[in-house]
Amino acid sequence: MEDAYISIPSGFKANGVNAGMKFPDRGNINPDLPKSMYLDVALIASDVPCNVAGVYTSNLVKGHSLQRSIGIISKGQKVRGIIVNSKNANACVGKEGVADADDVASEVASALGCSGDEILTASTGVIGTRLPKDKIKAVIPELVGGLSNGAESSHNAEFAMMTTDTVPKEVCAKLTLKDGREVKISGMAKGSGMIHPNLATMIGIFTTDADIAPSLLDRALRKAVAHSFNRVSVDGDTSVCDMVVIMANGMSGAVIEDGSEDYVIFEEALGKLSLDIARMLASDGEGATKFVEIEVKGAGSADDAKLIVTSVARSPLCKTAFFGMDANFGRIMTAVGYSGASFDPEKVDIDLFDLPVYRDGCALIFDEDEVNKLLSEHDLKFTITLHEGEYSDRMFTCDFSYDYVKINGSYRT
Amino acid sequence: MEDAYISIPSGFKANGVNAGMKFPDRGNINPDLPKSMYLDVALIASDVPCNVAGVYTSNLVKGHSLQRSIGIISKGQKVRGIIVNSKNANACVGKEGVADADDVASEVASALGCSGDEILTASTGVIGTRLPKDKIKAVIPELVGGLSNGAESSHNAEFAMMTTDTVPKEVCAKLTLKDGREVKISGMAKGSGMIHPNLATMIGIFTTDADIAPSLLDRALRKAVAHSFNRVSVDGDTSVCDMVVIMANGMSGAVIEDGSEDYVIFEEALGKLSLDIARMLASDGEGATKFVEIEVKGAGSADDAKLIVTSVARSPLCKTAFFGMDANFGRIMTAVGYSGASFDPEKVDIDLFDLPVYRDGCALIFDEDEVNKLLSEHDLKFTITLHEGEYSDRMFTCDFSYDYVKINGSYRT
Repeated sequence: MEDAYISIPSGFKANGVNAGMKFPDRGNINPDLPKSMYLDVALIASDVPCNVAGVYTSNLVKGHSLQRSIGIISKGQKVRGIIVNSKNANACVGKEGVADADDVASEVASALGCSGDEILTASTGVIGTRLPKDKIKAVIPELVGGLSNGAESSHNAEFAMMTTDTVPKEVCAKLTLKDGREVKISGMAKGSGMIHPNLATMIGIFTTDADIAPSLLDRALRKAVAHSFNRVSVDGDTSVCDMVVIMANGMSGAVIEDGSEDYVIFEEALGKLSLDIARMLASDGEGATKFVEIEVKGAGSADDAKLIVTSVARSPLCKTAFFGMDANFGRIMTAVGYSGASFDPEKVDIDLFDLPVYRDGCALIFDEDEVNKLLSEHDLKFTITLHEGEYSDRMFTCDFSYDYVKINGSYRT
Repeated sequence: MEDAYISIPSGFKANGVNAGMKFPDRGNINPDLPKSMYLDVALIASDVPCNVAGVYTSNLVKGHSLQRSIGIISKGQKVRGIIVNSKNANACVGKEGVADADDVASEVASALGCSGDEILTASTGVIGTRLPKDKIKAVIPELVGGLSNGAESSHNAEFAMMTTDTVPKEVCAKLTLKDGREVKISGMAKGSGMIHPNLATMIGIFTTDADIAPSLLDRALRKAVAHSFNRVSVDGDTSVCDMVVIMANGMSGAVIEDGSEDYVIFEEALGKLSLDIARMLASDGEGATKFVEIEVKGAGSADDAKLIVTSVARSPLCKTAFFGMDANFGRIMTAVGYSGASFDPEKVDIDLFDLPVYRDGCALIFDEDEVNKLLSEHDLKFTITLHEGEYSDRMFTCDFSYDYVKINGSYRT
């Protein structure tokens, strides 16, 4: 696979530096330490103003950096970039939280030569402590000075967003439009715990050099999110800082019009990239040892299908059984039963990959060795068929391991 | 505290034996093994027919033993007793599941000299494998022969119901009615994982020697369950076998009439016993090292209050932080935020015991040593105040530990 990073679309640059939040002793970083362990501030910037669209957490409690970005995007104005910090969520600290984010954004804007409200802000980390804005402001010259469209500085931006993530999540697609012109879309994301639909996630940033109106960008992003990030559940928790944004700077010169075939190509590509990232997020769920796809077919309504995939993907009993590779499919049947969906329990079929394990609501007798072999795969897929109608849905999740407890038992400290 | 067990009310007897399900080699049980590790079939019987009421899981998928009991209770007929087995849930095995439960009940009925549909059935354990009814039937002479109103055989009944429970859960109250007559109520329960409201639970059995009509019994039980078992969350999973039943045999001679002060005394006592068991269930949640009470005050509606306590009590991120004794109160704020309740995030207060940790939606700066000391208590209490209205609610939960994952990663095997 070709190297993917956020500054592949024309006119974008990125960088990630250490501001002393993840690793306080800036002058003394062991070069063997993974970059995700010390880089903590990322900047993605465009040479020219971008149209922008965003989708945000449904949590009533929203972080201050996020609230500020929502305010900017909802006004429909163009932006030049986004600054993201990890280690501190800038949430639940009161009025100072917005002021801190404003202050950081203004500093970036001065360095880039634009106005403060052309810079979006995103923060992820511990809730309830003030953003160490002086630390961040102190490294802005280094952050802006090192902006580049090269792979290394872009990967550094991704590392700087990561919290408990164990692998970077970066994607890229090059689309050829009907008239042969090329448009590029890149995406990067962080997020591995506190992940559940609406928003399913995390911080996700897309860049594209397409020339596309904000309303179209918004429509394409919402559709992409609905079938990808809103279908990932790591632990059922929805964070206060989740956002996915896309910035389009038009520098490819290719205009994407409403109703055109090009729009369809763009929308499909963005959807596919989002799905790829969603799979990466579930696969890298905190402490995850398994990636699990839960599919529902034959539901009587779209709501029922969604209720069931959510219920199974969220069930700690199912998720610990996935971890233990325990052929305890009754737990899946149980989670289907309490999902709140309406269906006839005596018509439910469950399959593990292509192997039937439940038929007509009854457990089948299966070959333990064969099932154990299937359950030992890293990627699992369960299909639940209701025989009630034509609706289907799916969700990506992971198992619940000792490490999930370990990671989250001492996150703050 | 006085010894509590199920056969304290007049005319009740109980017993628990080993049928070779928990421990196959019946003749060779190490006497040092805890009884909960090998007793697996329990019988609670009344000398005379009882009025009965029951509350059941809201899971659409219901175990066959449970379905059979629901059928009997819903016909309004009297019963003589209930047989409970652990290790096998008798669920999701098709028509044979009901036939198996019928078969076992008939065998008990023959031994007791009553009809099969006077015997309720309950099963708890692994879903999806046939009930080993021959093993159970083989020990019914021993089970019935050993029925007694003594403490030991009653405790044995409790041990026989336990699955991953680490402590027995038995309660008793002696009520003095207005005219000085005495009525007794006893209760016993099992259940430590797969616990979440509607039904919150588990199997719970109450006995009383009050003479009380089925409709009153039903009303008192529903009220008791609503504020106790329906307010316990261990892991958010609602099992297919949950039931709480109460059998009233009238042998005290004390009639409890609708609208009487005696009814109020009875209802309050049953409510208190249920609450005591609910606390025991949360405290003995699978792998639990903490008992946590989540209280909400000042909600704008009863639904909002319930949404919030449920959301916090269910959040894996809050529960792992309780385990880690991590002062990560932002996670509570987060779970409040995504609960679906409507409220103003900038008016939310959170207290740990009497210590304010959030005010007006903002994290307070607190003394780390003081907070660490409070978080090291076994019993924690958080109060969330919304300042929106007059509604309150509370829920009992526990933490999420390594042991939860361990217990549930290999339950079936």
